[in-house]
Amino acid sequence: MYKNKKVTSYDVAREAGVSQSAVSRVFRPGLSVSKKTRDKVMATANKMGYRPNAIARMLITKQSGMVAVIVSSRANENYPEVLSQVSKQLAARNKRVLLFTLDDAAGVDDLFEQIWTFQVDGVIALAAHFESQRLAQFEQHKVPVVLYNRNVPDASTNTVCCNHEQGIKQLLAELKLNNPQSYLVLSGPVDSDVANERREIALDLLKKSGEKNVQVLYGDYTYQSGRDCIAQWLKKNPAPDAVVCSNDTMAIGVIDEIRENHNIHIPNDMSVVGFDGIASSFWQSYQITTIKQPVEQLVKAAVDMLIEHIENADSPPEARVLTGTLIKGNSVKRS
Amino acid sequence: MYKNKKVTSYDVAREAGVSQSAVSRVFRPGLSVSKKTRDKVMATANKMGYRPNAIARMLITKQSGMVAVIVSSRANENYPEVLSQVSKQLAARNKRVLLFTLDDAAGVDDLFEQIWTFQVDGVIALAAHFESQRLAQFEQHKVPVVLYNRNVPDASTNTVCCNHEQGIKQLLAELKLNNPQSYLVLSGPVDSDVANERREIALDLLKKSGEKNVQVLYGDYTYQSGRDCIAQWLKKNPAPDAVVCSNDTMAIGVIDEIRENHNIHIPNDMSVVGFDGIASSFWQSYQITTIKQPVEQLVKAAVDMLIEHIENADSPPEARVLTGTLIKGNSVKRS
Repeated sequence: MYKNKKVTSYDVAREAGVSQSAVSRVFRPGLSVSKKTRDKVMATANKMGYRPNAIARMLITKQSGMVAVIVSSRANENYPEVLSQVSKQLAARNKRVLLFTLDDAAGVDDLFEQIWTFQVDGVIALAAHFESQRLAQFEQHKVPVVLYNRNVPDASTNTVCCNHEQGIKQLLAELKLNNPQSYLVLSGPVDSDVANERREIALDLLKKSGEKNVQVLYGDYTYQSGRDCIAQWLKKNPAPDAVVCSNDTMAIGVIDEIRENHNIHIPNDMSVVGFDGIASSFWQSYQITTIKQPVEQLVKAAVDMLIEHIENADSPPEARVLTGTLIKGNSVKRS
Repeated sequence: MYKNKKVTSYDVAREAGVSQSAVSRVFRPGLSVSKKTRDKVMATANKMGYRPNAIARMLITKQSGMVAVIVSSRANENYPEVLSQVSKQLAARNKRVLLFTLDDAAGVDDLFEQIWTFQVDGVIALAAHFESQRLAQFEQHKVPVVLYNRNVPDASTNTVCCNHEQGIKQLLAELKLNNPQSYLVLSGPVDSDVANERREIALDLLKKSGEKNVQVLYGDYTYQSGRDCIAQWLKKNPAPDAVVCSNDTMAIGVIDEIRENHNIHIPNDMSVVGFDGIASSFWQSYQITTIKQPVEQLVKAAVDMLIEHIENADSPPEARVLTGTLIKGNSVKRS
């Protein structure tokens, strides 16, 4: 049992030939102890596998061993997989996840206070939006931060992101094989940076290729919003030839709404594409043409980058962009 | 900005009319300070909102402010919702989630060591299986623990659980309206306590009601295992009248496999029930008859119980069982 195996400060003192009080002083902040004694105690403690408790260790190493992971309520449906990967990959680097959920901008003050209080070694933000003055606070407090799935234009912050432009280009190329005459872009919510980026890229690419009939609707990334948006649209308008959804979950909602309430065949009459490659996008009933995000590699990049910045405070900010994989499902007509 | 607003030990000292060193001594362990000075400093610190850093606070209160949440890889598909609720509800009680993922039994030693090291105030285990000697270790270390969605027969541990028996009774009653002659019970993996409990309850109830034609297959809670199990079964056997799945995800797999590869109509030829009430079980393409777990209430019970045991070490172990809601979907024939 753990308790019986545990090496105590008394064991270390006896082995090092010093008093127990000397060992305690080494592992307690603000108390003077000679360099010679400290060195002897530290060497013995390491040799014997003596682990002072987390508090003592934090005081010595100035590292808490914890990384704050901030999950926004606007995170995509693939966040459980991302979080699970983050936890495993940080554990492999001997860091633990201190989890924060962020529901709205009002919670940000409290969130930041908690982060300073717990003295985390670093921060990974999943799909959370922070203003640039917020990001500056991390720097002031010397807490390294990596933004997951976000591009920041001025490149002053560490970011890891799936290549949205490349992915949407591939999806539009798939759609164009059927020469669609009308497009509906179903955007995620405007307070999601990822949603805004994906929508603007799609609109920009469609404009550049000379498409005239392009409409935009706004959902909130949920299944129900996918259903509601397409249902509302079809009340007053003809069915678009192609629906470009900013995530898979809304695409699934579109498919189910069409299937239940409309005499429109997917993909023969209407093509639908999603984004993310969540598990249910592969299910037989949906088989969505989408871009699968390289989650494991994205997380590895984020963790590598964070550890690098924890260990070397002077490392310059870095942006990594990884390319996803086009999944040719059954929601786009095969020519 | 936070940095400028921060109340320092110097501010507290001036306000309390003591030396800064006195304030430091109050917030540093093992150093003597008179009760009078300590009381005066503490009162002033509270009044001014002085927050010594987390380390100092931990040393004073003997509480880290953190709760270890252990997520097993055998957790059901509804765990993201559970984890999100746990994080929010603990935050409302001023506790933070320190997240651990547990992949296999081999990782348990390391997990426990981490838990003692970080001196968490308590533990919530989501669907993780621990032997009774493991549970005893929590008691030895005086770390309160709540097992989420697990019944422990000897009632020596705090548990919160959905009423599986009541739920499965309701599901079987729905199925019996069609007077099925043959049942297939599709169990979750044998290393999941929840899966074992759900399977045994179903088999027991079917036996008691005199059903003769009951077969059991074992999946692993995943979509693909639902597909594979029913596909294998149908190679050599006629279609069962009723399929009782231990979770919704496998039920979705069964439905998709039947839809793609077999000339069997659900629910007219075969009824399927699930368990959990995950989001996708409500999707138009599935509409599974299932039991929706009262996740928010289950988490509230778990958090209440844990806080109670953190604050009162002598509180007796408690077991809370909450009843789920029968969802009448479209996967069981309406008579």
